[in-house]
Amino acid sequence: LDKFATGYLDNIAKHLYSSVLSDVLDDAGHRHQVMRPDVRPLYPGAKVVGRAATMLAIEVSELPPEPYKLLMDLLDGLRPGEVVVGAVQGHAGSRAAMWGELLSTHTRAKGGRGVVLDALSRDSWGIVDMKFPVFATGLSPADSKGRLEVVAIRSTMPIGGVSVANGDLVVADDDGCVVVPAAIEDEIVASALEKVSGEDKMRDILRKGANIREVFAEYGIL
Amino acid sequence: LDKFATGYLDNIAKHLYSSVLSDVLDDAGHRHQVMRPDVRPLYPGAKVVGRAATMLAIEVSELPPEPYKLLMDLLDGLRPGEVVVGAVQGHAGSRAAMWGELLSTHTRAKGGRGVVLDALSRDSWGIVDMKFPVFATGLSPADSKGRLEVVAIRSTMPIGGVSVANGDLVVADDDGCVVVPAAIEDEIVASALEKVSGEDKMRDILRKGANIREVFAEYGIL
Amino acid sequence: LDKFATGYLDNIAKHLYSSVLSDVLDDAGHRHQVMRPDVRPLYPGAKVVGRAATMLAIEVSELPPEPYKLLMDLLDGLRPGEVVVGAVQGHAGSRAAMWGELLSTHTRAKGGRGVVLDALSRDSWGIVDMKFPVFATGLSPADSKGRLEVVAIRSTMPIGGVSVANGDLVVADDDGCVVVPAAIEDEIVASALEKVSGEDKMRDILRKGANIREVFAEYGIL
Amino acid sequence: LDKFATGYLDNIAKHLYSSVLSDVLDDAGHRHQVMRPDVRPLYPGAKVVGRAATMLAIEVSELPPEPYKLLMDLLDGLRPGEVVVGAVQGHAGSRAAMWGELLSTHTRAKGGRGVVLDALSRDSWGIVDMKFPVFATGLSPADSKGRLEVVAIRSTMPIGGVSVANGDLVVADDDGCVVVPAAIEDEIVASALEKVSGEDKMRDILRKGANIREVFAEYGIL
Amino acid sequence: LDKFATGYLDNIAKHLYSSVLSDVLDDAGHRHQVMRPDVRPLYPGAKVVGRAATMLAIEVSELPPEPYKLLMDLLDGLRPGEVVVGAVQGHAGSRAAMWGELLSTHTRAKGGRGVVLDALSRDSWGIVDMKFPVFATGLSPADSKGRLEVVAIRSTMPIGGVSVANGDLVVADDDGCVVVPAAIEDEIVASALEKVSGEDKMRDILRKGANIREVFAEYGIL
Amino acid sequence: LDKFATGYLDNIAKHLYSSVLSDVLDDAGHRHQVMRPDVRPLYPGAKVVGRAATMLAIEVSELPPEPYKLLMDLLDGLRPGEVVVGAVQGHAGSRAAMWGELLSTHTRAKGGRGVVLDALSRDSWGIVDMKFPVFATGLSPADSKGRLEVVAIRSTMPIGGVSVANGDLVVADDDGCVVVPAAIEDEIVASALEKVSGEDKMRDILRKGANIREVFAEYGIL
Repeated sequence: LDKFATGYLDNIAKHLYSSVLSDVLDDAGHRHQVMRPDVRPLYPGAKVVGRAATMLAIEVSELPPEPYKLLMDLLDGLRPGEVVVGAVQGHAGSRAAMWGELLSTHTRAKGGRGVVLDALSRDSWGIVDMKFPVFATGLSPADSKGRLEVVAIRSTMPIGGVSVANGDLVVADDDGCVVVPAAIEDEIVASALEKVSGEDKMRDILRKGANIREVFAEYGIL
Repeated sequence: LDKFATGYLDNIAKHLYSSVLSDVLDDAGHRHQVMRPDVRPLYPGAKVVGRAATMLAIEVSELPPEPYKLLMDLLDGLRPGEVVVGAVQGHAGSRAAMWGELLSTHTRAKGGRGVVLDALSRDSWGIVDMKFPVFATGLSPADSKGRLEVVAIRSTMPIGGVSVANGDLVVADDDGCVVVPAAIEDEIVASALEKVSGEDKMRDILRKGANIREVFAEYGIL
Repeated sequence: LDKFATGYLDNIAKHLYSSVLSDVLDDAGHRHQVMRPDVRPLYPGAKVVGRAATMLAIEVSELPPEPYKLLMDLLDGLRPGEVVVGAVQGHAGSRAAMWGELLSTHTRAKGGRGVVLDALSRDSWGIVDMKFPVFATGLSPADSKGRLEVVAIRSTMPIGGVSVANGDLVVADDDGCVVVPAAIEDEIVASALEKVSGEDKMRDILRKGANIREVFAEYGIL
Repeated sequence: LDKFATGYLDNIAKHLYSSVLSDVLDDAGHRHQVMRPDVRPLYPGAKVVGRAATMLAIEVSELPPEPYKLLMDLLDGLRPGEVVVGAVQGHAGSRAAMWGELLSTHTRAKGGRGVVLDALSRDSWGIVDMKFPVFATGLSPADSKGRLEVVAIRSTMPIGGVSVANGDLVVADDDGCVVVPAAIEDEIVASALEKVSGEDKMRDILRKGANIREVFAEYGIL
Repeated sequence: LDKFATGYLDNIAKHLYSSVLSDVLDDAGHRHQVMRPDVRPLYPGAKVVGRAATMLAIEVSELPPEPYKLLMDLLDGLRPGEVVVGAVQGHAGSRAAMWGELLSTHTRAKGGRGVVLDALSRDSWGIVDMKFPVFATGLSPADSKGRLEVVAIRSTMPIGGVSVANGDLVVADDDGCVVVPAAIEDEIVASALEKVSGEDKMRDILRKGANIREVFAEYGIL
Repeated sequence: LDKFATGYLDNIAKHLYSSVLSDVLDDAGHRHQVMRPDVRPLYPGAKVVGRAATMLAIEVSELPPEPYKLLMDLLDGLRPGEVVVGAVQGHAGSRAAMWGELLSTHTRAKGGRGVVLDALSRDSWGIVDMKFPVFATGLSPADSKGRLEVVAIRSTMPIGGVSVANGDLVVADDDGCVVVPAAIEDEIVASALEKVSGEDKMRDILRKGANIREVFAEYGIL
């Protein structure tokens, strides 16, 4: 089974969503896999499922000797099925965007499925126009040049409050972003597919006016 | 006059909105009835008018002996005309959602008119799809199980920075959420209906290019 | 050349956007011209280009002797081609709106092109309905009367983290707000118009799968 | 009775402290008279009791035409028995100090009893050396010149989250700062003097191992 | 071995400190046992070692029917060797103190060894005078009556960002507060006693000018 | 003139302090040389003057392949007259200390004059005992191992909100920390020495009750 394959990832995107995956991860004892709530889609309905290509940037106060070196390494080597997952560490005062329309165009051309950033983006109009699923903590017109610099790629990093390893399964939608560690991906995806059908039944019962208490006793979830 | 009646509440929803109610409350000396600005609708145009059914949750670090007990008491006993109004107290770091689609389905089935939370929600896609007016401070896929627990219901509580009593009139729309204490509801609603027509006149005058100064001298408002 | 003329400003609005202006300002050594990312449009697609008419308000705890005096001076004296650019200084706890629908109606009637506030607005429904481009840090139903008071107009002030002089060129869109100092406006606008065409070429090349590295070497931007 | 007299104010300083005054204000229904906890003394044991001489400053981004005008008006007209009580409104990012050693020297020479600021100070070494009671939210070497400017003096203003009127009684010590409105000062001071002796009795009883429950039933306080 | 005994706890207080315990907990895979850095001692040199008696309070907006019920249950039932460990959940805006001098007097009389609060205290002068080790996030003169209410005692709760169980070993000093789960206390304390002597050797070597690199290679710590 | 020499640096430490240097930098147009006010000395009276040896760390979520590599490079190569100046970029939630007593012992042995960190320290008791001037944003018992990692040394970096170059003159005392760029050090130090004597005169005049207005007119400073 090729876990970078479009078919494999599209199937997850079609049947699963962030909250059901979070529930199943919780049940399996992985209770810290949800990013902070300020990582938001650039447009309603954006959804991305793919394998994390991780990067971490810092704030700088002058242009580095080889600007953008690691960022370009990551993006030029991107593999179809991947999602760029990154963070800017630094103070909340920063106003520079880590991402924009040109990088989105490039990433899509390389087969990248989307972007999840604990950082700002820019060029929202262009990205929304392309319907390229980018998640960010906000928008700013200011460029990253001489303000931000990537210092690590493709290693395990804290992003949005979650420890993300390169290659982990990332699922982001209107509710937020969940990271499924690659080592437990098969069992988590399988359980989530089961749970989805259970929720459909609950919804029908509740719609008819059932008490929450009975439903919780029966299904163990709310 | 049944203040839980659909007709009574729909009439307020049709003619009044949060800002005019806030102005009238201000004039009557009630200047702390507006919730913090981060309590936002899940979709543009969401509006809810109803009687507060209050609940307060805390962050927990393990599953309580009887999980969800008070939450289920509140929801199973919900009365038509009510709005669930709640808060999670705790540090900003929390990422668990206090609400979701199944609870929304249940609440609508019981005759609940909407939800106003100083807390996160999840399942935004499902809730938006139902057009059920939910207000929250953000979204997160993470479930409340073992993370949040309701510790008080149907008493007077601080929610979104306002002291809300069970039974108060709650009006939330795109601008935010206003709480009208039940004891002064009749006079406030009556004055607000009057004020609305005054604003219509001002708007016409301003549209023709009148000076703000003249309008303020005449109507006493901006 | 009349820099308040509709034609002049509309032309900038048509061809330029905030991020390209920010890049050109950066290149010219003006690296602090972008407002904080929480100054956001009230509706997607809102865009405003015009000359700053500046105002600064503070939080008050009682009604001043002559309420709204400076605010009314500014608005009644507004000139076509201007944009109201203002800030409320004060603690984050404030919940009062500095702006609303009636002021928007008046401003449009006077020929004002929009509003950019490091402060809250209200009456979002009405403003969105008018398609009047208002940018703000949030919404609240609470009125400014006895809560906020303008203490300075038409001088140079810190707004959204940028030092804005009365008369500066302000460009705000979905990405955020950029301030172009009037003294360098001609060269910045000219360079930005040039840069826009360069980006079009880059986008085409990247769409065909070019490496970021080659494009950066050729065009010097990302 | 001269409420600016050293004897009157020293007597309050000797017998009362901030927490007992806050309790008595609470009992009288004035529950918003305590400043935010980040207004702290510059040295342990600093205590100030006096009449508020109020001032409010804003952040500026260029030197005003007449720098320091209102600040100098306030300080040159200071009356013995007064305490300078002020705030800087503005964003948390500001790093300029509103006060320093030279102003402290001047204020003491004029008979001022101390300073309470919802703002930064500087020259802490000199102020501590003088044993002049200054309360501030922090320290910074950066001067106010061209960064802060006083825009209002001797009116009612929000300072540290409390609405302070010029002439109010201000009591600040290691616990924080309490503002007693001048209109109710006599009754509040009288009740506080009574309450202090009650607490002495409670302390003795508790020291002997009494249960909190019995003490609360008897004295109604904890 | 009586783990509430003065001798047992004094011995830990004499030989161990928070940072060495944190290191040993880290090595054992317990990496979330250190409270947030804003939980600080009321006076330099305060140190407390004891068994956690936990409590959790919320912000309220009116006096509850039985005020202070659970707080009094906890304090009247306090056992020698215990430390009161508590938190107020709620918004950062709260200015009420959860603790004070009378409760300190009572706690010491019952054999309590100190207090660690993710909350404000008051009466700092009295508490410092008693040399009773109280840790808090700040000080405020405002009383808890009608502002805060304890809703849970002696259960497992999040306090200062750590999940604290009733009975856990708590060690707080100038560096901060560490929680040792009771189940692993013996091994952690034993390892910490060993580690302390290793650090003494390192310090001597470094004092003589050794390179950090050699010391790290030899001892594995910095 | 050897600018690393003890004599040169001690002379500055004896005659100058952070606020006078900040004033002189302001006058020379360098208005962003003061660190954020939360960079505080570990004990009152701590003062450090020396040449910056810069380092920048990030938060990590697993132990890097060569832990502490760059930190050890910096510290083992430290030169007499230097001050370690560093920052941790990352979210405010981090609780790991970047510095401690062993590193302080080593740094002093190498001739380092002190430490200024936009980060947490630990082992405050030991550092205070040594009277080694360490400045930090707070304290925490938690070690940096597997939590923080230095990613850059001896380059120009944003630290405490100031762009600090390796080799810059750093002056930190009770008021905070000022960075003097090496290129303008001579003129700034010379002007500061002059200004200090002017302040002495002003202080004498004010002590005798002069009006602030006259003093400002004469000396141009407050």
